[in-house]
Amino acid sequence: MAAEIVNSQGELDGGVESAIDPAFALHRGGKMAVRATVPVRDADDLSLAYTPGVAKVCSAIAEQPELVHDYTWKSQVVAVVTDGTAVLGLGDIGPQASLPVMEGKAILFKQFGGVDAVPIALDCTDVDEIVETVVRLAPSFGGVNLEDISAPRCFEIERRLQERLDIPVFHDDQHGTAVVTLAALRNAARLRGVALGELRAVISGAGAAGVAIARILVEAGIGDVAVCDRKGIVSADRTDLTDVKRELAGFTNKAGLSGSLESAMDGADVFIGVSGGTVPEEAVARMAKDAFVFAMANPTPEIHPDVARKYASVVATGRSDYPNQINNVLAFPGIFAGALQVRASTITEGMKLAAAEALAAVVSDELSADRVIPSPFDERVAPAVTAAVAAAARAECVARR
Amino acid sequence: MAAEIVNSQGELDGGVESAIDPAFALHRGGKMAVRATVPVRDADDLSLAYTPGVAKVCSAIAEQPELVHDYTWKSQVVAVVTDGTAVLGLGDIGPQASLPVMEGKAILFKQFGGVDAVPIALDCTDVDEIVETVVRLAPSFGGVNLEDISAPRCFEIERRLQERLDIPVFHDDQHGTAVVTLAALRNAARLRGVALGELRAVISGAGAAGVAIARILVEAGIGDVAVCDRKGIVSADRTDLTDVKRELAGFTNKAGLSGSLESAMDGADVFIGVSGGTVPEEAVARMAKDAFVFAMANPTPEIHPDVARKYASVVATGRSDYPNQINNVLAFPGIFAGALQVRASTITEGMKLAAAEALAAVVSDELSADRVIPSPFDERVAPAVTAAVAAAARAECVARR
Repeated sequence: MAAEIVNSQGELDGGVESAIDPAFALHRGGKMAVRATVPVRDADDLSLAYTPGVAKVCSAIAEQPELVHDYTWKSQVVAVVTDGTAVLGLGDIGPQASLPVMEGKAILFKQFGGVDAVPIALDCTDVDEIVETVVRLAPSFGGVNLEDISAPRCFEIERRLQERLDIPVFHDDQHGTAVVTLAALRNAARLRGVALGELRAVISGAGAAGVAIARILVEAGIGDVAVCDRKGIVSADRTDLTDVKRELAGFTNKAGLSGSLESAMDGADVFIGVSGGTVPEEAVARMAKDAFVFAMANPTPEIHPDVARKYASVVATGRSDYPNQINNVLAFPGIFAGALQVRASTITEGMKLAAAEALAAVVSDELSADRVIPSPFDERVAPAVTAAVAAAARAECVARR
Repeated sequence: MAAEIVNSQGELDGGVESAIDPAFALHRGGKMAVRATVPVRDADDLSLAYTPGVAKVCSAIAEQPELVHDYTWKSQVVAVVTDGTAVLGLGDIGPQASLPVMEGKAILFKQFGGVDAVPIALDCTDVDEIVETVVRLAPSFGGVNLEDISAPRCFEIERRLQERLDIPVFHDDQHGTAVVTLAALRNAARLRGVALGELRAVISGAGAAGVAIARILVEAGIGDVAVCDRKGIVSADRTDLTDVKRELAGFTNKAGLSGSLESAMDGADVFIGVSGGTVPEEAVARMAKDAFVFAMANPTPEIHPDVARKYASVVATGRSDYPNQINNVLAFPGIFAGALQVRASTITEGMKLAAAEALAAVVSDELSADRVIPSPFDERVAPAVTAAVAAAARAECVARR
């Protein structure tokens, strides 16, 4: 394949290392486009889709604001918002360099959930500025998917936007990961014939994903869960905790453990890695019999699946080349599709739990150690999640139809 | 046709007067959608369009920022930004009620210029807030089309955004109208065999369109132009002028006229109406022989075309049911397509003049009193405008390729 990198003068440029990578060829010109869903072929079409016909539709919405959901694309389009501060494993690469990920996310929304999505990469990192900006552009959108915003700012941004807006605001790096993890854990527990309440879990990583996973596991009734950051177990006796970790210490770690990750893993039933780094094999060996290891760091799992399998009864990773891939695409398209379908004003904890239950149920008749979670390409997934989320929104009275 | 208005509970709602209008049927569910331009069918596709393949593309852009134009949709997508304060003739109806117009604009961008566009209706009207918001979301877009923002705020917003951003910022209500008006005037003058420098024009309306038309006519070499607001001719001796009108007085009205619109029209060669209101027939009758009347108010022209034709040699309106429709869709799609094609950092006066010249040239061999401007559906228009704008951007050294 010829070099795919061309500089801004249109000349071939050999300066970028990955010049011969097919990913560059695929990305040329971007990955998405807009299309009209109504005809604009002649003056009659134009007089309905634009002036003068459009004026009546505008007036009707001005008079009866909820009609915006019926007569515009608002209720089917999500803003994929980032500030480019925590992009994949690349870190703070800025808004423009994050765009390929946001476009990728947008086309996954469309492909898997039938939801339109638009990348909005913001040139600001201040929490107040991000919140104000998203509030101001919200009239155009039916939902906001926050993406790749670094912790702990992501928690405050999400909370404040949820308070200010009457449309769903969802930080996928937190809740998408949490929903899929819970689904896999439910099925692993079913397979072993234990209840979640009998399990003690250890989470390595107290960032966006770790905090959200801890929260959903507690809501789902996990026996106990300890979250570890780089300094060890997040426990109330530590004096170096951020606000978010102090709150975390309050509702996790009922056993009152303190010390290292390895010590937390002693006898634990579940390991959940969302941190990167490496866990020594000895620590895995000291987990409970038939433990579950979900080592989700990408591209290098915290515990290699071949090692994990020596000790664990169920092994999951973030990778597509091993069984049981914990992939957010199993959750976010259906969660937003369901929320938008009923015009939910928010995405509640109940809607997330319902999404996890529905996702787990897709493979409940086919359960095996290598199949506790469906494939991202299983076509049953998005409809099941969509229906469950819509029903939960109605049950919790956050649906507007 | 059955009632098309359904309230938020999904029930038929007879409360909106236009319930049986086909425009509502057409608008149901909105007028646009997003689509993927790359395959996302299987794990291999996903590994190129999303993780892990996308990471290399992000890294390359982080290292060499101009690659964002090659490997994302940035350079082909325009934000259609409004605050909903001056929507069509409806006035300040707010951001959500303006969305049908913004979607309409977006699909016209696509249909006529091949340019992707996304409606961004902002929930703020303060100039500082609008400017900051657009600056923050600019990394995602190749251009900004300002739309339906009330004067005089629109002037300052455009100027400040042009200073802050390195992508084209274009207020279509000003410059789109100005470009098409100039094109029609050039052809009318050709038809009559006079130079622009021999013509004296009167503009009724000193809002967004009136100010921009005055400016482009002066740049194009009009003999003289007087602009009138509700109080009459904008002249330096008036004490009630806003900053924008004071500036206008400085570069228009060389004859130093003062008084009413009607007095300005005495002996004038050109009337340009962008105000609404009605001009008495007697005033038209006192214009110069073979005058041009462009009465562009919609839906009711300032001078009815049948009346204007009694006195004028060329008559144009904003309506599609009379000859010579001054329609912005003749300009903005090609102007942005040309600017984006060469990655222009701005849209200069020269690029606008080039657009007007190219637009006029499309029908230069077919000129008649009823054909001084092409039809919006003339397929030669957008390619001609695109090429002229791109060439002008290169000539003025604002092109990045």
